Amino acid sequence: METPAPPVSVAVYLFARLRQLGVEHVFGVPGDFNLLLLEELDELDAPRWVGTANELGASYAADGYSRERGFGALVTTYGVGELSAINGVAGSFAEQVPVLHIVGAPRTTATARGLPLHHTMLDGDAGHFQRAAAEVTTAQVVLGPDTEPGELIDQLLQTILDTSLPGYLSIPEDIVGQWISGERLATTLTPTASSPSAVAEFRRRVAPMLEPAERVVLLAGAGVNRARCERQLRRLAESAALPVATLLDAKGALDERHPLSVGVYQGAVSADDVRAVVEGADVLVRVGARPCDTLTGGFSHRLDDSALIELDIDHAAIDGHPIHGIRLADALSVIETVIVERLSEPVTANAYRLLTAIAGTHAHDLDELDGAVTEPDAPLTQARLWQTVAAMLPTHSTVLADAGTSFYGIGAELLPDDSRFIGQPVWSSIGYCLPAALGAQLAQPDRRTVLLIGDGAAQMTIQELGTIAREHLKPIIILVDNNGYTIERAIRGTHSSYNDITRWNWPMLAAGLTAGSGQITVSQAATNGELFDALHEARTTPDQLVLIQAHLDRLDVPGALGSMIDALAQSAP
Amino acid sequence: METPAPPVSVAVYLFARLRQLGVEHVFGVPGDFNLLLLEELDELDAPRWVGTANELGASYAADGYSRERGFGALVTTYGVGELSAINGVAGSFAEQVPVLHIVGAPRTTATARGLPLHHTMLDGDAGHFQRAAAEVTTAQVVLGPDTEPGELIDQLLQTILDTSLPGYLSIPEDIVGQWISGERLATTLTPTASSPSAVAEFRRRVAPMLEPAERVVLLAGAGVNRARCERQLRRLAESAALPVATLLDAKGALDERHPLSVGVYQGAVSADDVRAVVEGADVLVRVGARPCDTLTGGFSHRLDDSALIELDIDHAAIDGHPIHGIRLADALSVIETVIVERLSEPVTANAYRLLTAIAGTHAHDLDELDGAVTEPDAPLTQARLWQTVAAMLPTHSTVLADAGTSFYGIGAELLPDDSRFIGQPVWSSIGYCLPAALGAQLAQPDRRTVLLIGDGAAQMTIQELGTIAREHLKPIIILVDNNGYTIERAIRGTHSSYNDITRWNWPMLAAGLTAGSGQITVSQAATNGELFDALHEARTTPDQLVLIQAHLDRLDVPGALGSMIDALAQSAP
Repeated sequence: METPAPPVSVAVYLFARLRQLGVEHVFGVPGDFNLLLLEELDELDAPRWVGTANELGASYAADGYSRERGFGALVTTYGVGELSAINGVAGSFAEQVPVLHIVGAPRTTATARGLPLHHTMLDGDAGHFQRAAAEVTTAQVVLGPDTEPGELIDQLLQTILDTSLPGYLSIPEDIVGQWISGERLATTLTPTASSPSAVAEFRRRVAPMLEPAERVVLLAGAGVNRARCERQLRRLAESAALPVATLLDAKGALDERHPLSVGVYQGAVSADDVRAVVEGADVLVRVGARPCDTLTGGFSHRLDDSALIELDIDHAAIDGHPIHGIRLADALSVIETVIVERLSEPVTANAYRLLTAIAGTHAHDLDELDGAVTEPDAPLTQARLWQTVAAMLPTHSTVLADAGTSFYGIGAELLPDDSRFIGQPVWSSIGYCLPAALGAQLAQPDRRTVLLIGDGAAQMTIQELGTIAREHLKPIIILVDNNGYTIERAIRGTHSSYNDITRWNWPMLAAGLTAGSGQITVSQAATNGELFDALHEARTTPDQLVLIQAHLDRLDVPGALGSMIDALAQSAP
Repeated sequence: METPAPPVSVAVYLFARLRQLGVEHVFGVPGDFNLLLLEELDELDAPRWVGTANELGASYAADGYSRERGFGALVTTYGVGELSAINGVAGSFAEQVPVLHIVGAPRTTATARGLPLHHTMLDGDAGHFQRAAAEVTTAQVVLGPDTEPGELIDQLLQTILDTSLPGYLSIPEDIVGQWISGERLATTLTPTASSPSAVAEFRRRVAPMLEPAERVVLLAGAGVNRARCERQLRRLAESAALPVATLLDAKGALDERHPLSVGVYQGAVSADDVRAVVEGADVLVRVGARPCDTLTGGFSHRLDDSALIELDIDHAAIDGHPIHGIRLADALSVIETVIVERLSEPVTANAYRLLTAIAGTHAHDLDELDGAVTEPDAPLTQARLWQTVAAMLPTHSTVLADAGTSFYGIGAELLPDDSRFIGQPVWSSIGYCLPAALGAQLAQPDRRTVLLIGDGAAQMTIQELGTIAREHLKPIIILVDNNGYTIERAIRGTHSSYNDITRWNWPMLAAGLTAGSGQITVSQAATNGELFDALHEARTTPDQLVLIQAHLDRLDVPGALGSMIDALAQSAP
């Protein structure tokens, strides 16, 4: 005879659910309306609290954490806290990152009476912030005295899992400690399975497209990472020697030195051979790949000649005809089955060699790198910076590249095998990657996080460098010091003062944020040789938090970024 | 024969309007969708661009600027920029501060086609951010190809002026340079005058209340500052020797050493004599005073025995019966007229002396301060800190006190005459006051800005200290270093780690943010003597940016804050 599950508080229920989803760290800032919630984080088995310096940092950190773990969470207080985080949550929406935004709210009795509380508009309307959240989250739940908290929390988490989008949960102070049944916790939450009829329909529709096709090409986007289907993508590619191109936001979803990897496709900005492969497909399978101006060379992609199969996280479309209720993993399985069935002979090493030639054209090898070191006194350039960084990345790196020169600069280089790449090309909120590195490094302590960020971007969110040090994390940070918003200069206002930023002394600042503890090593790289030495030192000291201040000309931009900006300007409608 | 006004671009029109409203500085961050707008800021007669490190800083700075100038403005980019600023704009709403939030948006043609642009949700819905803004602004305008930009801009600015609330203006890239008539610029915008019938009705209703009243008391709130009616308040008080109490958010609206100033009223937390005067009124005139838990000792105010006249910025109410269309200044004039008419004899010096006794009870004089210096080695306490700060404020100070110990600590002390006091008790977003000090000091270069802020709060927005230095501003900053969120500790989690913050080395940090330029002097104050010396030095070097790091015990709170928190806990509904 089983004993019934003991009742638990709403807070304990929620935190148990988060733990089940792999969330071991929760980010946020305390505020008077969320203190009761934070008290419950001291409970056994609750996630660990990671206080950030401000709420925007918490939202970015939760997003970075989720990209590595599959789920992330932050806790803020009512009004002031939640609105400070809303830009980061919106970024999670735009970039399809599952994050739960938990807000500690005033007591339901106070709200019901419309009391003029602080952190409100004094207008008695308690709905302002939930309605704002509705613009940037997939679902919103406000717990109240007459609700079923366990059921509502589960529905919200289920929606987040199914859509891979952020959700919003408001918990009034008097609900935090309410006792509810813990019975539901016995069943863990997983994404809703594909509907068999949707899978059957998908198969019925793709089979006749794939069977006669000579050139089936896979174009992978960040949805592959969000659905955690990197291995399945690889298996599909290898099952029939299908070439894989990626959008820049899925760089490395298939190891870039894999013989079937043809490189990054970005419309007119792509290398010619990548473009030829992708645009020459009979059938193009877009695997979690959503077009966006910053990913497609300003909409210069030309894919109209291919039959199109689009796979998104929770649905698919065939030549524009949508099929709902099929998840990306299942869609990949169907395609693999169909393709393997039609193969008259097994894939041979020969086909691999053919494709190796394509992939090889993008590789920088160490000979080239040595070239950099033989000119050790040459001033650093964007071109050389990214080439050297890419060549010297530690193995098992997670590379975070902030919007701007970092993202397009490293994007044009090949990453080592087993690299993970995090950027934010759709939302493009500069400064995101610094707190995201905090989250990513906590989520994957065995990978070395490498943060690439411009000086203007780093100024946005610099306080979380202190949080990184406090958490004893050891990422490598490469700060692109070029005195301003260089990406904006490349677009407009080359010499305009509005693109200047305030000059900081970064070594002093880094020392200040780490309380002069010696926890951070700061090195200067104004030449190729200095960069090489600094990176070498960083690689060989994995237990050291490192900031490399790379000095670049304020107008120097990576070639790929220049091309992208030209393409964007031409595409202006 | 007059020549017609030449056509101007939408941007030039807008900036000309802002200049007419006294806006000489515009805050913000560049982004690709607002660069065309920023280009126009180079034009003759446009406000000067003050780039901040991030958008939250810009919104707080614009709010601080507006409180000193009567109007403020910020420019952000679409999506990422505007959402980063939304918490600051919401604060302007909650605190009735007129601010224009200008957003540079994508071209109307791109938006109309629902193109998947970066800085969007890729869902083709261009309304997300405007709808979010609608929750925190009084009016929203999105310019488009078929709109009348001049008229719409004027309507928006008029609404902001009339309501003293923030407004939202989205300008697509293709509208920025559109030519429109400049004719409307010949007429400057001012708040809509009171309606004569509303004024007449107000007079008809207040006269019978005021005529028989023995004890008419004025209770001033921040609305007095927003309506810029401080002088009128004083004149009314002096015209009939009416005692003036203030809510804490209007501290100093009447000089606190003025004989008619009875002190700060905050319900049960008030000094007994203040409470007796306010709660003993026959007729209480609330002048721009809105109750809020943080201002009324957790709703412990007891004002039910008085007849009540409420004056707000653009309306009034008599015993709860609203009268729309009468502005605060006009309502004050009516009351003055009615009261002076009923006076049987002129106000005598005798009445003044009577009231001087009340005011005198709150004064700390320099004898007490000397007491502090005779114990120079005594460790600093919150009690001594605020007393000493208040006594040593430079004349013509604008004091910004961040939510928490700073606000309640200095709130309990008397400010020197001609002080201005800025806090944010309604919205209570910690970190607000640091960027607000940037705005306030730029708005009033002849006043010395004194910023009082806790360490946890300063960590939220610290990057704008660099902006303050870059702008060559010289505020005095007193950093209350007590290792965490002490106000939260006082509420809950006294020793809980979630109320800890990351340790920083503030002198190193300050040097880093000012590029090691020596622009900032940092001094340490752990004892009474050190604080006295540091403040003395700061007072005598008005051309020096000064940071005083005051070391306080992590559990020490000002007495007034402790009482407030007790009152809040008791009032929990």
